[in-house]
Amino acid sequence: MSMYPIILSQGKFTHKDSLTFPYEERGLHFGDGVYEVIRIYDGRLYLLDEHVDRLFRSLDAIRIELKHSKAEIINLLSELIARNNMNQDGLVYLQVSRGSAKRIHTFPENVEPNFYAYLENQPRNVEGIADGVGAITLPDERWQNCYIKSLNLLPNVLAKQTALEQGCYEAILHLDGRVTECGSSNVFLVKDGKIYTHPATHRILKGCVRIAVERFANDLNIPFIEEAFTLDDIHEADELFLTSSMSEVLPIVEVDQKKIADGKPGDISRKLQEAYEIDAQLKREKVK
Amino acid sequence: MSMYPIILSQGKFTHKDSLTFPYEERGLHFGDGVYEVIRIYDGRLYLLDEHVDRLFRSLDAIRIELKHSKAEIINLLSELIARNNMNQDGLVYLQVSRGSAKRIHTFPENVEPNFYAYLENQPRNVEGIADGVGAITLPDERWQNCYIKSLNLLPNVLAKQTALEQGCYEAILHLDGRVTECGSSNVFLVKDGKIYTHPATHRILKGCVRIAVERFANDLNIPFIEEAFTLDDIHEADELFLTSSMSEVLPIVEVDQKKIADGKPGDISRKLQEAYEIDAQLKREKVK
Repeated sequence: MSMYPIILSQGKFTHKDSLTFPYEERGLHFGDGVYEVIRIYDGRLYLLDEHVDRLFRSLDAIRIELKHSKAEIINLLSELIARNNMNQDGLVYLQVSRGSAKRIHTFPENVEPNFYAYLENQPRNVEGIADGVGAITLPDERWQNCYIKSLNLLPNVLAKQTALEQGCYEAILHLDGRVTECGSSNVFLVKDGKIYTHPATHRILKGCVRIAVERFANDLNIPFIEEAFTLDDIHEADELFLTSSMSEVLPIVEVDQKKIADGKPGDISRKLQEAYEIDAQLKREKVK
Repeated sequence: MSMYPIILSQGKFTHKDSLTFPYEERGLHFGDGVYEVIRIYDGRLYLLDEHVDRLFRSLDAIRIELKHSKAEIINLLSELIARNNMNQDGLVYLQVSRGSAKRIHTFPENVEPNFYAYLENQPRNVEGIADGVGAITLPDERWQNCYIKSLNLLPNVLAKQTALEQGCYEAILHLDGRVTECGSSNVFLVKDGKIYTHPATHRILKGCVRIAVERFANDLNIPFIEEAFTLDDIHEADELFLTSSMSEVLPIVEVDQKKIADGKPGDISRKLQEAYEIDAQLKREKVK
């Protein structure tokens, strides 16, 4: 359970222990909902607009109507942080389901969506950022609408568990050899000074850190090419890295037990990490 | 809410109002669980062994360890019916999630699965059984492991909602023109006295009524051929029908607003409905 006692539910603030859901909840029965996880540094929400925009895109895609506007959501999240006196590194998790109703597949009528959000502490992955991480490769067995950040995450759970059991941080997913993304992050390949990643089609979730990395690359004059790379390309790569709100920019230094290049984080990964730290205002003593 | 007040939760019987779930529940966050819906006629569970066998196959596939044996589950469900004095047509819904734990994709340690089951009244679809229903066709956008009866049902929800909004009962799903199954049922085509349906690969859920229909077909000497048919085949079909625990054997008489054959339920559909009624012991005055 979160160490932060105040939780946001249906636009109101309440104690976390009082928030429970009935067994007839459409998140619970169908995964009929969407979510966001937003990074917090020193109590500040990072890439907030990008996350809230995406939340509304996901809601639109599955036709859930939330009564709050984007501005209201932003205010509520800020108030959640203030009410919990949170001033550390952490995250806010927010979820919207289609509501509580008798179990029938089709949309219930006159039912209000269930919307809640809570805070967690979450230190930065300092070691992974410094040294890089290992990954495995797995077939991408997910549905065809991964651009929706939905609660249907069983394939992601299974992929990440398989990675963990093989001593790795992530699973790189591929469709017939073409890399889409990872279990819970986007993935990028660097070759000859250029960054390659799968285009933001319906097959991947367009990460908010991915959006930021594209911006950093533009600022640094590094070509950012939306073109899928293959499993074969991975072992010819100069660098490989992943991004997510929890992982930031994380070098991948080993894939399927084989080193990428010299097995150390590469120059472009380092430049993007630096750009991230500046953008997220992380240049402070404790991370030096 | 169910009209039956006693619910089964963690192997114990309790009042339905007392069963709630915390916001950190893996069904709620990830759809990390499986379920079954079993038909009840006059208080009797139909195809019970088939459903409980499938529950354990689904649990094995996603590696959830339930502490109950199959025999214990069967006893608990029978006791649930007895404790609620249920003697009508209905259903039991049962769900097992990986449990309640802080939200991290990988499996939590030392966490007990959440297992609950409840009863609902559910009359037979007498009109649909008599006259048949309409269906639309949609691309099958689901993940690649539909043989697992998981809680990741958002694509099914969206497909069934689309069907409803077009005035239809079901959505027939296809992969590049080859029909897999429907939003919540299996689908069968009859041509020249033979029944065709998609093989029970990982792409479809092998329905318990599908198993029964194969048995009925064998008894009636009707060839049952596990071979996918196409969208083009549909409009050349002699008959089309779907099966599910809720729908029984339901003729499909119209697809995408075009009649199948003469637009009336066919002979083989009728024979299978009759076999179903005998098998489920439904030959009684009220359905005549």
